[in-house]
Amino acid sequence: MADSFQSSIKATSYSIAQIAKHLNARVIGDDSPIISAINALADAQPGELSFLSDKRRQQELKSTQASAVLVNEAAAEHCPVTAIIVDNPYAAYARTATLLYPQRIHIPGIHPSAIVDDNASIDITAWVGPGTVVEASAVIEADAQIGPNCVIGKNVHIGKQTTLVASVTINHDCKLGERNLLHPGVVIGSDGFGQANDKGKWLKIPQLGRVIIGDDVEIGANTAIDRGTIKDTVIEDGVRIDNLVQIAHNVRIGADSVIAGQTGISGSTQIGKNCMFGGTVALAGHLNITDHVVLAGRSEVRQSIEEPGMYGSGTPLEPMKKWLKSAARFKQLDEMSKRLSELEKKLAQLENK
Amino acid sequence: MADSFQSSIKATSYSIAQIAKHLNARVIGDDSPIISAINALADAQPGELSFLSDKRRQQELKSTQASAVLVNEAAAEHCPVTAIIVDNPYAAYARTATLLYPQRIHIPGIHPSAIVDDNASIDITAWVGPGTVVEASAVIEADAQIGPNCVIGKNVHIGKQTTLVASVTINHDCKLGERNLLHPGVVIGSDGFGQANDKGKWLKIPQLGRVIIGDDVEIGANTAIDRGTIKDTVIEDGVRIDNLVQIAHNVRIGADSVIAGQTGISGSTQIGKNCMFGGTVALAGHLNITDHVVLAGRSEVRQSIEEPGMYGSGTPLEPMKKWLKSAARFKQLDEMSKRLSELEKKLAQLENK
Amino acid sequence: MADSFQSSIKATSYSIAQIAKHLNARVIGDDSPIISAINALADAQPGELSFLSDKRRQQELKSTQASAVLVNEAAAEHCPVTAIIVDNPYAAYARTATLLYPQRIHIPGIHPSAIVDDNASIDITAWVGPGTVVEASAVIEADAQIGPNCVIGKNVHIGKQTTLVASVTINHDCKLGERNLLHPGVVIGSDGFGQANDKGKWLKIPQLGRVIIGDDVEIGANTAIDRGTIKDTVIEDGVRIDNLVQIAHNVRIGADSVIAGQTGISGSTQIGKNCMFGGTVALAGHLNITDHVVLAGRSEVRQSIEEPGMYGSGTPLEPMKKWLKSAARFKQLDEMSKRLSELEKKLAQLENK
Repeated sequence: MADSFQSSIKATSYSIAQIAKHLNARVIGDDSPIISAINALADAQPGELSFLSDKRRQQELKSTQASAVLVNEAAAEHCPVTAIIVDNPYAAYARTATLLYPQRIHIPGIHPSAIVDDNASIDITAWVGPGTVVEASAVIEADAQIGPNCVIGKNVHIGKQTTLVASVTINHDCKLGERNLLHPGVVIGSDGFGQANDKGKWLKIPQLGRVIIGDDVEIGANTAIDRGTIKDTVIEDGVRIDNLVQIAHNVRIGADSVIAGQTGISGSTQIGKNCMFGGTVALAGHLNITDHVVLAGRSEVRQSIEEPGMYGSGTPLEPMKKWLKSAARFKQLDEMSKRLSELEKKLAQLENK
Repeated sequence: MADSFQSSIKATSYSIAQIAKHLNARVIGDDSPIISAINALADAQPGELSFLSDKRRQQELKSTQASAVLVNEAAAEHCPVTAIIVDNPYAAYARTATLLYPQRIHIPGIHPSAIVDDNASIDITAWVGPGTVVEASAVIEADAQIGPNCVIGKNVHIGKQTTLVASVTINHDCKLGERNLLHPGVVIGSDGFGQANDKGKWLKIPQLGRVIIGDDVEIGANTAIDRGTIKDTVIEDGVRIDNLVQIAHNVRIGADSVIAGQTGISGSTQIGKNCMFGGTVALAGHLNITDHVVLAGRSEVRQSIEEPGMYGSGTPLEPMKKWLKSAARFKQLDEMSKRLSELEKKLAQLENK
Repeated sequence: MADSFQSSIKATSYSIAQIAKHLNARVIGDDSPIISAINALADAQPGELSFLSDKRRQQELKSTQASAVLVNEAAAEHCPVTAIIVDNPYAAYARTATLLYPQRIHIPGIHPSAIVDDNASIDITAWVGPGTVVEASAVIEADAQIGPNCVIGKNVHIGKQTTLVASVTINHDCKLGERNLLHPGVVIGSDGFGQANDKGKWLKIPQLGRVIIGDDVEIGANTAIDRGTIKDTVIEDGVRIDNLVQIAHNVRIGADSVIAGQTGISGSTQIGKNCMFGGTVALAGHLNITDHVVLAGRSEVRQSIEEPGMYGSGTPLEPMKKWLKSAARFKQLDEMSKRLSELEKKLAQLENK
């Protein structure tokens, strides 16, 4: 695994002064050096910028070789190099990295190998990549970037500056807002899982709704969002969804909620705003989850949550033999509880004698 | 997120009388109005049809604005508008929606941008969409609909009226029956996960079987079904599989079983008929699950199930601090059980004094 | 579901003597028969070869119709047909199946429908299938097989003899080693899920690292591996990953580890060498898992693991009513534990009287 391979990801260069101005931040130290990369505190070299967003890394600050570090007011005095002082170093790092490494924008136009229906409407500033199919009545707005081998269904609407990286499939009649970012393998608008049982056989329930996605939404690789049955499935503005997430029909996810990888949300469940779900969380259907709910990874949610706060479920990892004993005892819990009550009763009787 | 965007999903219109005839159902009330959409009880407007399949919605029946409602005999008297009386309103709703909103059928033919091997056999009534690849010896039968950017491998057989929505990959030698519906991102016939360890290194075991899928099967977005190692992986008639499900090599799923999203079935496990698995269920390998087994969402199944019925596993969601205590105690369960037995013994001794 | 459909998967024929020579194995019995297929002990017919790798199948050995069986020294005396004696029958089966059923190799060349950037470098012995897109500065080395409808991003490097079956997406700047096998729907190099919160709104953290994959790695259908944030996500040599697995940014998986289906590994977690994870395992972020750790399916890992060995978590499946009682009691565990301690104290007081 020797690696002589070179990445082509290069930063645009800015002086510390320019970066500080971009962040509207105060600088302590020399603001003239040119920054040409961003790096972790322990790895950064001269000419690179770093950040201290996690107190546990404060030790690394003292010996950093970075030319400048994004720090908060309190940490500034411990910074051995130029300090760029900000309220929220992690957010400032995100902003600086976005400045230094702008998203690659393709030259506008439709690749000759793309297959675009005559009745599709594609803004002249948009890019449609090779092998991508755009069906009738689809609308692709200004500065949208539709990567290779995507499928944009009939009457789909894609908002301004929205990017589909590659191999994304949007089924008919779905709508994406502005500045969305969809990673490869994403499927939007697949049929909801509606099946009616008729004497042991299943009848498919046609899925007539759509998926409506707001602005500034990011959706991770191979995530699937089903269309609504009658009404729409809705992802509100600012939602961030990780890889391999399943979002069933008629779900609504409130603005600025974050959903980590492999989480599954069953049909018609409504998620509030500013929620944070860890990975592999599972939610049953027809629940209401209020705003500001934080779920530990692997939580299982079978009932609505009315109070904001942190929740979790599950059992801890144990060495195999020990775990098998704990698991076996779990099945005896109800009996153990009854024996405990019986003991308490008997002991009370003895004490009263 | 203002939504001036219009869906292109429109119903074909039928009179209530025509719909009742289609369902072989009795009507109480005026059967002449024309129905041009289906909608929920609370949302339906005149000219729309609704249904009452969930008793909890009986209150909504009383004030519905629908022109007609699918109801069972018992609910008919509470219906303020025209009642279409059926044994199973949910199934009747599925049938009516299928009548009103027929699946979009493409004009037969092979899109000029499809890449079809000269030795593939495609029925003249079938449709092969843009960007789709069909390899040698593949057979696509009458009225099949193969959407854009699919890959149909060598010697694959696709039955009559089967639809691949878009971006579906079927590996060589797999067989799909009739009237199947596969959603985007589905992978059929990927290699089973067979690895032999040889002194710490892994040797791949060639996967020589196929995936054989019966009739009337639906498979959700980004679901993967592996081919068998020597024999085949088999999905029987009428099975319905949701999104992001993993079905390993040599699994058999019995007819009319339903598998919800993100469920995983390990190698060689055999599932009976008419089973219903909730979402994110996990089954170990080499198990036998009998017919009519219902598994709660997030169940983990490590042993065969011989008795039909409902099963579940897992722990309930709790506020974070409370959960951490419960989880810590779980590790003490075996010790707690022993202390309980010791107490019982000692108490019995005291009582006997 | 009658099946008159014929598979096109045919073995190359070898004599038993030739196979034994390939395995460097001793033969007891007639080594002249020609083997034209591999099959399970109970199903094998004359002309076919089988193997005994699982002691529980020893009974099937006695009545096998196979022409020869791969057995270890101890089982040889029970073999009623020609015995090929090997140390590790399962590994020998893998080697023999690989000999009999060699991977299909395409005629080198670039399919006319592939869209290859002028600045990409494709070895003349490599194959690029129909509909595949290869972007600028990508390098595809000798004997690589890139199946239909793949997307190979800018500056991607694909090593010798690596196969992408179909519909695989490799994002820019990622590197695959030699002899890898990637199944359909795999996404390599999607952005890691890095989001910085700024007063309730999320800022995307640009993901500047790559995914670097060693040699002899297999990756299952619809698995997603995110690129690193600053450094790289690394999959070392010999790793085997099943379907629908999520590997987050900056994860490292040590050589020869095996990860079963639907497992999720959160950001920055480091996995040792020769680990084996069952299906639907979940690991939190920033953990260190040492070498030779075996995790039962559905394990949840919230802390680093420093000792090699087997681990598990979770609760056993129970009939629904019983499970609901057990789950309810789980929430009372801390209280039960305290009552138990109280009882012990009181009983001790009584005994001391």
